[in-house]
Order: sequence, then structure tokens, then C-alpha cells
Amino acid sequence: MSDYFSHIPKIQFEGKGTTNPFAFRHYNPDEIIMGKTMREHLRFGAPYWHVMRNDLSDPFGAGTALMPWDDGSDSLENALKRVPVFFEFLNKIDIDYYCWHDRDISPEGKTLAETHSNLAAVCDALESEQKAHGKKLLWGTSCLFSHPRYSQGAATSPDANVYAYAASNVKHALEQTHRLGGEGYTFWGGREGYATLLNTDMKRELDHLAAFFHMAVDHAKKIGYTGQFYIEPKPMEPSTHQYDSDSAACLNFLREYNLLDHFKLNLETNHATLAGHTMQHEMDVALGANALGSIDANQGDELIGWDTDQFPTDIYMATHVMVRILKMGGFTTGGLNFDAKRRRESHELEDLFHAHVGGMDTFARGLKIAAKIVEDGRFDELVGQRYSSFDNGIGADVEAGKTTLDSLDAFAHSIQAPVVASGRQEMLENLLNDYIV
Amino acid sequence: MSDYFSHIPKIQFEGKGTTNPFAFRHYNPDEIIMGKTMREHLRFGAPYWHVMRNDLSDPFGAGTALMPWDDGSDSLENALKRVPVFFEFLNKIDIDYYCWHDRDISPEGKTLAETHSNLAAVCDALESEQKAHGKKLLWGTSCLFSHPRYSQGAATSPDANVYAYAASNVKHALEQTHRLGGEGYTFWGGREGYATLLNTDMKRELDHLAAFFHMAVDHAKKIGYTGQFYIEPKPMEPSTHQYDSDSAACLNFLREYNLLDHFKLNLETNHATLAGHTMQHEMDVALGANALGSIDANQGDELIGWDTDQFPTDIYMATHVMVRILKMGGFTTGGLNFDAKRRRESHELEDLFHAHVGGMDTFARGLKIAAKIVEDGRFDELVGQRYSSFDNGIGADVEAGKTTLDSLDAFAHSIQAPVVASGRQEMLENLLNDYIV
Amino acid sequence: MSDYFSHIPKIQFEGKGTTNPFAFRHYNPDEIIMGKTMREHLRFGAPYWHVMRNDLSDPFGAGTALMPWDDGSDSLENALKRVPVFFEFLNKIDIDYYCWHDRDISPEGKTLAETHSNLAAVCDALESEQKAHGKKLLWGTSCLFSHPRYSQGAATSPDANVYAYAASNVKHALEQTHRLGGEGYTFWGGREGYATLLNTDMKRELDHLAAFFHMAVDHAKKIGYTGQFYIEPKPMEPSTHQYDSDSAACLNFLREYNLLDHFKLNLETNHATLAGHTMQHEMDVALGANALGSIDANQGDELIGWDTDQFPTDIYMATHVMVRILKMGGFTTGGLNFDAKRRRESHELEDLFHAHVGGMDTFARGLKIAAKIVEDGRFDELVGQRYSSFDNGIGADVEAGKTTLDSLDAFAHSIQAPVVASGRQEMLENLLNDYIV
Amino acid sequence: MSDYFSHIPKIQFEGKGTTNPFAFRHYNPDEIIMGKTMREHLRFGAPYWHVMRNDLSDPFGAGTALMPWDDGSDSLENALKRVPVFFEFLNKIDIDYYCWHDRDISPEGKTLAETHSNLAAVCDALESEQKAHGKKLLWGTSCLFSHPRYSQGAATSPDANVYAYAASNVKHALEQTHRLGGEGYTFWGGREGYATLLNTDMKRELDHLAAFFHMAVDHAKKIGYTGQFYIEPKPMEPSTHQYDSDSAACLNFLREYNLLDHFKLNLETNHATLAGHTMQHEMDVALGANALGSIDANQGDELIGWDTDQFPTDIYMATHVMVRILKMGGFTTGGLNFDAKRRRESHELEDLFHAHVGGMDTFARGLKIAAKIVEDGRFDELVGQRYSSFDNGIGADVEAGKTTLDSLDAFAHSIQAPVVASGRQEMLENLLNDYIV
Repeated sequence: MSDYFSHIPKIQFEGKGTTNPFAFRHYNPDEIIMGKTMREHLRFGAPYWHVMRNDLSDPFGAGTALMPWDDGSDSLENALKRVPVFFEFLNKIDIDYYCWHDRDISPEGKTLAETHSNLAAVCDALESEQKAHGKKLLWGTSCLFSHPRYSQGAATSPDANVYAYAASNVKHALEQTHRLGGEGYTFWGGREGYATLLNTDMKRELDHLAAFFHMAVDHAKKIGYTGQFYIEPKPMEPSTHQYDSDSAACLNFLREYNLLDHFKLNLETNHATLAGHTMQHEMDVALGANALGSIDANQGDELIGWDTDQFPTDIYMATHVMVRILKMGGFTTGGLNFDAKRRRESHELEDLFHAHVGGMDTFARGLKIAAKIVEDGRFDELVGQRYSSFDNGIGADVEAGKTTLDSLDAFAHSIQAPVVASGRQEMLENLLNDYIV
Repeated sequence: MSDYFSHIPKIQFEGKGTTNPFAFRHYNPDEIIMGKTMREHLRFGAPYWHVMRNDLSDPFGAGTALMPWDDGSDSLENALKRVPVFFEFLNKIDIDYYCWHDRDISPEGKTLAETHSNLAAVCDALESEQKAHGKKLLWGTSCLFSHPRYSQGAATSPDANVYAYAASNVKHALEQTHRLGGEGYTFWGGREGYATLLNTDMKRELDHLAAFFHMAVDHAKKIGYTGQFYIEPKPMEPSTHQYDSDSAACLNFLREYNLLDHFKLNLETNHATLAGHTMQHEMDVALGANALGSIDANQGDELIGWDTDQFPTDIYMATHVMVRILKMGGFTTGGLNFDAKRRRESHELEDLFHAHVGGMDTFARGLKIAAKIVEDGRFDELVGQRYSSFDNGIGADVEAGKTTLDSLDAFAHSIQAPVVASGRQEMLENLLNDYIV
Repeated sequence: MSDYFSHIPKIQFEGKGTTNPFAFRHYNPDEIIMGKTMREHLRFGAPYWHVMRNDLSDPFGAGTALMPWDDGSDSLENALKRVPVFFEFLNKIDIDYYCWHDRDISPEGKTLAETHSNLAAVCDALESEQKAHGKKLLWGTSCLFSHPRYSQGAATSPDANVYAYAASNVKHALEQTHRLGGEGYTFWGGREGYATLLNTDMKRELDHLAAFFHMAVDHAKKIGYTGQFYIEPKPMEPSTHQYDSDSAACLNFLREYNLLDHFKLNLETNHATLAGHTMQHEMDVALGANALGSIDANQGDELIGWDTDQFPTDIYMATHVMVRILKMGGFTTGGLNFDAKRRRESHELEDLFHAHVGGMDTFARGLKIAAKIVEDGRFDELVGQRYSSFDNGIGADVEAGKTTLDSLDAFAHSIQAPVVASGRQEMLENLLNDYIV
Repeated sequence: MSDYFSHIPKIQFEGKGTTNPFAFRHYNPDEIIMGKTMREHLRFGAPYWHVMRNDLSDPFGAGTALMPWDDGSDSLENALKRVPVFFEFLNKIDIDYYCWHDRDISPEGKTLAETHSNLAAVCDALESEQKAHGKKLLWGTSCLFSHPRYSQGAATSPDANVYAYAASNVKHALEQTHRLGGEGYTFWGGREGYATLLNTDMKRELDHLAAFFHMAVDHAKKIGYTGQFYIEPKPMEPSTHQYDSDSAACLNFLREYNLLDHFKLNLETNHATLAGHTMQHEMDVALGANALGSIDANQGDELIGWDTDQFPTDIYMATHVMVRILKMGGFTTGGLNFDAKRRRESHELEDLFHAHVGGMDTFARGLKIAAKIVEDGRFDELVGQRYSSFDNGIGADVEAGKTTLDSLDAFAHSIQAPVVASGRQEMLENLLNDYIV
């Protein structure tokens, strides 16, 4: 076991009064909320890419992050050295799940075969650390966006050989996910889209993408992998347009190509707002199609036009998310993966802990508030009342499919001109604030 | 026939050299382009709401538009007085098609019955003017967004009586559209969405909306109306979220509720950009589902966050639109409806003509440029080459459904690491500029 | 005294436990915080335009607001009938200050003279109600944006006669503000800008605007008015560009034309975010120039591209605002004016109260949190430490103006390569959440 | 002389008819426009950072650019090898000026002294290439944003030692700019701002920044450098807020700290739109303060929320820019520097030429159109007429400072209610299109 965080105590629950920045104020893993522990509700995950591989560089500056365990090389040895450090971190911060891209954990080799054997070698190490520490893989994925060969797409590349390479990467990433007991497998199509329509045949690319997904589904069946496939929507970054731009675009694609039975969505807060939607909206769209799978928990800056991937500290947002998770009956395969990075100025090891402590406490607080809201049922009652005219009479006839334009026209002539009741938005916003404590 | 525009000459083609602002430089209605006249290609439409009813007020100021024919009242008499003025305008500007909402052309009555009889009375006048001047109705629609009763939705209202009222309005608007030979019928759901999710049951509302559309489809069949139904996507205005926010959201909804055979999309340039997409993108998404129906031709200001509905003067945009219209084989039921308003500062009658002349010339110019692009075939050839690796070999196998992850993995191991060719975006942008003359 | 709100109780403090929506949970007017009552700190104001004149219409729909006292006419009689209703509202909601535009309170007359006499007549009524109820005018202003004559600007109109009309309006509005004891006078230049640069001489317009402001300053001196002049920054709405687009643009203008001694800024939350800034940023820019005057307290929707003017319910935002107000020593002439409107769907009289109760409670809560932050001093201490290298040594020399590039170059060669300490953003965000209770 | 571009012909003017992508259609360097050659008007510059150092990586992927001359190391030897390649490029593309950051051209050394000696060594090579090929330095600058030490600012760093390092870098970059005959020296403050206000003392940072600029001005005087200082405005990237966010913010700062006599602005198209302004707006704001210095010519994607730095191909935009440059009498020290990068997918050497050819042709075309507009004078005449009421009578009195609110009030009572004439925006937009050929 590595010892890079020895100066930082294991993070533990101390409660609201504490001034210790290396303690939880709200996340009390074993506290029971609505019949389950916080740990079971929240299923926190840490992303290998941000914790281990993000040096906090940005397009205008070099990396700042201190990583004393890393020799800066892209060797297999260095990759293997990172593994125990990551598990040391998971232990200290008390996070149970993690996620990876193949290229976060293991380097590209000189040949495709070497690339795959590198992956297998690191997965050996991961498997043994998982067992040693009782940690689990929330999901795996293949990085089909970083290498120059994927600059114009992987499953939507105009080059069939690149497409074959992508398929090979997914095959191996999927098999390693299966072997590590990964509860899900994610596709994020950062290059599956276009830079300009001047050179793009959108329909042909989408056909290729659907074929690719069907092959992945078939391969899972073949190898006996029963984890959940996810698509992660995101608009405009890094491609000018990604096909999976928001929940509705993903669902439209999945319906068109008969893939909706095989995929759920992995929704990210900051991706939602980049698409012009609230996270609540994206979640409700997914829930309406029974396709809400997992959450990439972070926070954006709505005045900034790109994915800032900040750690989530907004109590309102965490509350909105957790209300929906509670109402859908909790996560099954999914969880709350912190797809978030420290600011470039927060380059010290301590900051890694401050950041995760804040995110975990915020969601724990959101969970407690959400449980109060759900248990009280006041919002549900008010919403139910608002639609009550559809519970019987002409409204119920509409819902039962018994009306026509003619019958509704006749009905409309028979009644007084209707006046809709106030939507009471301001009162409901005040009510929400009553729960924020 | 009215005579309010006697000081303005009938707008005619004078060609590029002219400095006469009341003449066309590019729109030569009878000029043949790729086998059809410009008139047949462009199928320009004028919207009754902007031409006749928009007083150019904005949220911060009163109307400025001079409308000497209008007494400012909401009487049926005043409504009937507007009709010949509108056709005088259509004649002077040489536009063949027009569009209306029921409430643009005729006033709400004291009872629902009176409302419908007002509509019928104005449609009598429209019918006679259509015949007299050879003008045609591109599409009709019912205004389900302006009256306070629809403030919380029409087909998605929480109040079943409001829903019935909306059905009654649609029944009559659809029947009048049918009687006037309207080539299409449009739904724009400005209030079909939500102001806040705190009071909203999204799934229940969408179920109601789908039922509503199915009733409209059934009613059209019943009355023998064979025109095309359209949905017009728009995000965020006036509701915080409209369910029909962009092409993908509409298609997802239409697929989910088995409505895709009955609807096409009426796309508006400024709605596309509000949704974060280019108009080209929205058109390609619709084309991919064979669902591009008609165009609301205008222009937005991408630095402004709402629908500015400016007249289209951007030659690039008109070119992109017309390339797609030519490639889909031209409009069938659809056309180019100028859903555009003069700026509030352009309040004189002359401005109405400047605005439409500019829009028509811009699209005529776009048509000529687009025809050159399509006939030359250089873009198509370059795009075709880009995907040529899918025309045979492993790429063709992928398209034929003959590959698996295993077979592609094996193939990938057998080849050199692929290097994708340049996407040549800058060269293609330069090439586009070569056509802009 | 009118009696339109008899079904609504006078709003009183009941504390956090209450479920009464018509009660304050946090605003306890006489509670002492840092040596002053909440009432003295917060100086709440209600805007005549939203409370009395906003019928909740939007660009896509008619007004929905119930206003049983209003006959819908623009008569002086109707204007006078509104006055006691407004004061009934102020009493019920327990707000001490109010604000008006001349045209909110009194109608345009047939002549300029009648317009001014209408204003004087309503101000008679306001004066008597002020005295009767102990209410005060926070600021007055002239509406130079609604009438068509101002469509192309008032003090920046291209028409000198319009400019003269604007001057006449300001003269009378300023004199009535003076007579009512108004503590400030505001300029919001909604039409002082341009719709297009194609027809605009920006420099000439700005010269005219500066001359206009100097005349206002001179007139105040002449009539003995010693209240504070404010400019209210806002970008892009209703003009494509307003010259007073943000704090920096206003200060640049005030400096260029030697007006900075005479004006402070009236900052609005939603205007800040429309300009791409946080409210905190705009406040700090104003504070840096000693020019923070007053606050238009509302809240925007950052995913929506226009001024939504929602009631403020965000505890974070209220906290950030109140920290700055406390640190500047509190308001002098300014206050917290709720420049906010109910949603169009919240059209009942009750909603007017829900909305203001929520806004007042949110700022009261923000005040309590801010006081805790300021008194604790932990943020100040951490920020002070961050810059401590400028407290002595080379840093102090820099601040004292004793260094040159040569001397700093020599110094730089003499030291180890510096490593800046972590900015600790995540820890500070966590610390902020500790105060949110 | 290097020979890396031997497969690409020297780019020459072939005129509009050509289909050769490696030729100019519009840029005819010696063609006389309004008394000067195109070369003299346009003063094109190439940025060392994009041409030589941009590997086309993005936050989601590795570099793709082919750079056969570059060994990938950060050695001085590699730096020196790049120099002749850059001048080979300048010769082939026929660009006369170039720009650099110190760290583009020479590597950070192990010590500050080595860093400076590296810079001097490369400047020896640049000087000799400049002489050999007749090329000139448009401006130099020091990169104070990339190194981790500057992550929290350089002249606004909270660490005084970092401040001293920044001063040392500027001293040497300024001296080398002087030695190479640089016509200007630019400050772009990418890190001069804040990531969060929670840890920031804005006023103290701005004081430090002003002191820094004054030291630079003093040092220029001391060493006899008479080139022009520029500030380059940009908002939000890479810092959450940069103090130099737009033209108005820069001018406000320069006025506050008595620096306006010493600085002009270097405006970038994409920075303007990120700040919510058109480039025309930013130019007019700068021109109003006699502070328009130079242009970073590129193009953004207004649907994308960050600086995409695309090559300029929009004819409208180039026209608007060139109209203003012609009207200010042409550049003095400034020029059109292509601060633009190829798309990541355009990674081949040919793309470097396509990109610059497109940019140069677009601006040449814009120049020709702008010259026509300026010589015709129709826009100027229409704008002049619009303000003609200020040329005499009451308007002239206003401009002469002879009016007061009282005198204007009296005048207003003496006239008919004014009606402003149409702003004719649509007609002017049509007129602009007449010039686009």
C-alpha cells in the first residue's frame, strides 16, 4: 500500500459543528435515511482520470498538480505505480466505487496488441486492489477521443480502419470491465459528431454509430456481460456538435435504431447546462423513458461556455438530483461519480481532499433534504392537485383515449370559459427554501 | 381593393445594377434555375401576424408601427378591414403564399361560438381574396399561446377544461385551413412546456400532448384534409422549456408516440440558434428522418438571447438552406415563410417593403449560389471521397452488417495503425466563399 | 384606504418553524444584527411598475394579472385610484420604500403640459399617502424608453426635438422626486444605445448623453436637490446595445465625461448576469470606484437569455450581496428594491405576497449569514494571508512605488523560483456552505 | 533556408477565376486601393505561436499537427531549428509581419538567467532572418500565463516574488522587441483576473497591475523604445474573469490609473463576441477613445462558448473591420495578425496554407468592399442625415453646451410632439448586401 497521503487523516464524519476541513459535516455513511444507509443511497464513485491523471493543465497553461508518485512518463511501470496510490486515496476519502477509461489506466502501446496487453496488466493490479480494499468498478469505458486517429470520430470516423480500431478498443475495454465486475459500461462520444457540416454525411455516420452499438450489445451477450450500457450526452465540446448532445437527442437516436432496450443515460450536470437545460430537465426526460442510469456529479459555471467540471457544492442542485433518485427508487447499477476536477490553482494534495469532501457533503446534505421533501409529500400533493381535473370527468376521458376533437369541441361549448389556477411558482420556491437547512 | 401602398411601386426585378430600393436585384420570379422557376423553388410566404398585426411593441415599449387602416380595436369589422390591405401587400411585393393563426385574422368572441363564427366570417373574406388574386394558404394554425387561459399550456394544460377549449380551437382552425386549401397545418407549442419543474408532471403532460395530436390526425382523416401537419421546434421562449425544443426533441416525441408518419417539421432559423444549433444542423437532423417540411425564414442575432425574428439578409445562411432544399428535391407542401418582423425603429410603411425585398433577394441569391454548388458537385465529390473507405472492403462489411467486435478486432490487428486524412475544413470554407458572388 | 387585500393577513415574522405562507420565517424587522435592525440594514423597496402596472403580459401573450382596482384605462382617475392600493400593499407586506417611473404613476397627456400636470396631480396623492403611512421614496426616474418617440433613444436620440422632450421629462421627474423627498434619482438608459451600428454615430450620441447628465446635475444644484444620482447598467435589452452595458462601461463613461463625482451605480442582479458577470463582480467593480449606490434585487435564469426579473430566492446570491453591503458600511441613500415580477402563471393577488415574502426572507437570511461571515472574519483572514507577501519586503516596495523593471529583475535573479500557494477555491466553497443554515 | 514546404508553391495572386487552392483570388499585394497598396493597407502578420508551436491538441485530445522539423523537445536547439522554417513559411505565404511571445520562440531555462539567455539567442536568429527576408516584427509579448507560477496571475499574483519574476520577463521581452524593431508591445492578461472572488482582493490586484504597466512605460522610455503598447481585451478565458474583459473595461482601467496616453487596444474578433459584443462595437468603443491599435484577425463560432480562434472567412466581418480601418486612416503601428489556428482535424502542412490563404483573401475582399463603401459615401450620408437636427437650431445649442433642463423644457413646450423618422435598418442591411460581390 502506498503512503502519499500520510499527512492527511482518514476522512470521517464529525457533524455540522466541526471546523476541521478534513472531516464530513453531512456524509455519515452508515446513517439510515428512508430505510437505507447513506452509503447505499449515494454510491459515490471517483474517476481515475481526474484523480490520477489530471495534471490541471488548461489550453493556456501547463499542468500545476503535484503528483509525487508520477514520473511523468507514459510507461506501463508508471501506470502500475499509480494503482495503489489511487486505492490509498479511495480508502482515505471513503469512496466505494470508481470509473476508468482504458487510456487513463494503461498506456497506448507500440502495437495494438501491446496496447491491449498493457490494459490487461493494469487490470490485474486493479483486480487485486479491488479485492484487498473492497472497492468496486462503477463503470469502464474506452477513450475514443484523445488519440489523433480518433480526431474525426471513432464509430463515426470517415475512415473504416479507424472504425475497426475503435471496435477493437471497445471489445477489450468491455471484456476488462466484465472481468472486474463493472456494473456498467459507458459510451461518451466526444468525437462522434462533426467539426463542420461542409465535410460531413450525418446520416451515414449515424448508421455507422448504431451498427457499432449493436455490435457492443451482441458482444456483451456473447461474453455473458450483463452490466448496463450507458450513453453520456454532451453537446458542442470537443466536437462542434456531438450526436449525443442531450437526453432527447440520445433517446431519439436509440429509438430510431432499436437500441432503447439496451441503453440508459449517464447524465452529467455540467453537460446538461451546456445543452441549455437544467439537470432536473435532463433527468426528467430520461426518467420519462425509464432510461436514467447513472450520474456524473459535478457543477458548471453557467456564465462560462464550456464544461468547467467543478466539484458540486450547490445545495439546491444536489437536492433536485436526490429527489429524483429517491423517487425512482434509488440507483440500481448507477451511482454518483465525481466527474469533477479541482481548479488549476488548487494544485496541492490537500485540495484533492477538500474537493471530494465538499462534493460528498453536498450530496449527503441534498439527500437529507430530498428525503424530507419526499417523506413530507407536500410538493407531490400540490402537483397532484394541479392536474386533478384529469383524474375524472372529461380529463379522465382524455387520458382513456375516449375523446375526439368533435367531442371536446362539444364539451367546450357546454362549459363556462375556463380560468386556470395560479401555478404558484413563487410559493413553491419559498417552500423549497424551507427545506434548505 | 385597398390602396394604402399607392406611394410604393409594385416591386419588380431590375437586376444587380439598380439602386432602386423598391426593386429586386436577384429575385427574378420567372428565371429558370435547375429546371424550375425561382417562384416555384422559393414558394415565399408572408405571415399575417407580422405583416398585419405586429405593431412593433416590445416588452419595454409601446407599438410604433404606422397602420393607417387599423382602428386599433379588436372588432370583427376591423379584422375584415385588414384583409384587403394584406392582399394589396401580397400583390405589391409579389408573394404567392401566406400563413395565419386563427387569432391573427379574427378576434376572440364573447363566447366560444362567437369566436368560431368570427373565424368563419374572416375566412369567407380570405377565400374570396385568394381567388381574386391567385394567392394560396401555405399553412394555418391555432394560436394556443396568447390568451391567459393558455398561460400554463393548451394541450399540456393542467386544466382539462382548457384542454377541451384548445381542442375546439384546433378543430375549427383545421377545418378553415382545409376549406381555404391550406397546404399544411402547423403546431407551435409556445406554452406546451413548463415554467418550473417544481409544479410540473412532465410525463403526464406529454401523454396529453400526444393524445391531442392523435385526435388532430384522426380529425383530418375524418374531414378529408390531406395537407401536411407540422411541428415547429423552439426552445425556452415563451415557456422556460417547450417540449418541442429542437428537431431531435420533436422527433423523439413523435417516435415515442407513433406520430412520425403524420408530422414533419417546420424549422425556423432563429429557433435553431436559440437551441444552440445551426439551421444547417436542424435541417440535416430533420432530413435524416425524412421530416423536413417547411421553413420559417428569418435571422437571429447570436449575441442576443431571444428570438429577434429579423429579416434574413445573410447570404451564407440562405445558401446553406437552399443547398438542402435543392438536394431534397424542393419543397412539396412547404415554402419559405418570412416569420420576421421589422425592427421597432423601422415603423414606416416603406420599411415593410424594404424588409421583404431584402429577404426575398437574399434567398434568391442563395438559390442561385446553391444551384451552382449542387450542379458543380465539388462539395459532394469531396465528401464522397472522405467516406470512400466504407464503399468496399471492411467498411462495406460494416455497412452490410457483416462485422462483429471480434471480427473487427481481428481486422484491426492485421493492419497498420491508421492515420485519418485531413478534414480540410479551411479549404472547404474557402471553396464556399468562391461561390459567394 | 383601499381594501383589496383584506383576505390576506398583514405579513408578520413567525420564525423558521411556521408553515404559514403569509408569514416571514427570517425577516424580523426589529431584530438587531451587527448593531442595526434588519429594517435599517435591508431598506426594502417596492417598484410601482411591477406591483401596480405589470399585467404579466409577455411578447407572446396577453396580461393575466388580476387587478380588480384597475379599469384598464390610461386615465388620470384610474392612476389616482391605484395610489391607495399601492400603499395598502406596502402596509400589508411591511415595506418602507418605493420607486417609480413618471409614466408608471401618471399617464401621458394630450400635451406635454398635461403630461406634467398629471404627474404633479399623482405626486400630490403620493405625498399625502407617504405621510399617512410613513413610507419613503427610494428613488424616482423618468421613463424614457416606452413611448415611440424614444424608440431610437432619448438623450441619444438622433432627433434634437426628442432630446428636448426627454430633458423636459427629466426636469419634471427630478423636481417631483425632490418634492417627495426621494433619496435618489435613477437613469436607466434602455434606449440609450443602438439597434444597429449601420445607422449610428456612437461618439456623437455619447457626447449628447454626457451633456444631458451634466444638465441634470446642474439642475439638481439649482433646485437644491441633494439626493444621489444613479445609473443602472444593463446590456442588450431592449436595445441591441445599451451604452450603460455593465459597471465598467458606466464607469468608463463617467470618467471620460467628468461625471464620476455625481453618479453612483444602481446594480441589478439579472442585468449583471446578462452582461456575463456575477452580481458579486459588478458590485466589486463598483465598490472599487466607490460607486456602489443601490440594488435592484431580483434573480435571473442563467439558461435564459433575457431579463427574467424573477423574485430573489437564492440564498447564496443574497449572502454574496449582503456581505458586500455590510462591508461597505451599509446603504446610505440606497436600498434593496425588488425589481422583480411574478411569473405570468402566478396571476392571483396571493402571488404578489408569496413573491415579496420570499424575496424579503431570502435577503433577511442572506443578511444573517453575511453577518456571521463578516463577524467571524475567517474569509477575510484567509484572503489577507494570500496577499501577505505584499505587506512587507519587495511586495511593500511595489505598493509604495519604489520598484522598476530593472530593480525587480535584479530581485528576481536573487531568489529561488517562486511557487505560488494553492488558491484553495474548493475549501473556500466548502467553508461558505458551512454558513448556509 | 529550410525546405519543408517544397511541395507547396509560393502563393501568388491568380484572381477570381482560379480553382487553384494555393493561390490568392483577392489578395493582390501591389494593387492600389484608395492610394495605397493592399500590402500597405492590410499589414498581415503571422503569430509564431499558432504557426510554429500549436500542435492542435485540445483539452480532450493530443496534438495532431504534422511538424516534421520539430523533435518535440523543449530544447534551445529545437527552438533554433524552428526559426528558418517559420521564415520559409512567411516567404511562401507572402506575409510581412510576425508576432511572438517570449516562450513561443525560446524555452524556459533552468534558471531565470538561462531563460533570458535562451531568449537572446533565438532573437539573434530572428534578427538575422528578418534582415535576410525583409520581414518585420509587428509586436512582441511575454507569456505570463502558461507557467504554473503564473496560474494565479503575474502582475496580479498574490505572491510578490511571482510579480518580480513577471517584471523580469517583461523587461527582457521588451528589450528584445526593441532590438528587433518591433512596432508594438502587447499585454494579454490571461491570468490577470480571478478564478473565484472568494479568495480575491480585486482592488489590490488592480493597483498592482497599474503599477506594473507604469513600470513598463518607464522602462520603455529609459531604453528608448518608442513602439506602441497594447492591451488585448478578453473575457472569461482562461481565468473566470480577466480584468481586461472588453474595450470598455480596459479603457476604464487605463483612465483610472492615468495610463490612457500610453496604451492602445489590440482587438480580437473572437474576444469581442465572447464578451457579448460585435467586433464593430469593440472597434467603435476603441475609436471613440482614439485607442484602436491593432487587430488579431480571426473568427469565432457564436454558438460555441469559448475562443475557437478560427481563420477569418466571413466577408461581412472583414468588411466591417476594414471600413473602420480605412476611416481611421489606416494602421500606424498595428496590422492584421492572424491569431487563428487550424481545426484539430486539419493537421497536414497544406492546411496551414489553406487557412492563411483564406484569411488573407477574405480581408483583401473586405478591403475592396470597404473601399467602395467609403468612396461611395452613401452610408455616411445617410448617417449624417439621421443626426442633422443637431447641426443647427436647438440641436446645435445642445452640442455647444448652451442649454439647460429649463431651456430645453421651455423649447419642448413650444414644439409639436416630435416623431422620429424610421431608422431604416432593413434598408441599410440590403444596401450592405449590394456591396458584397
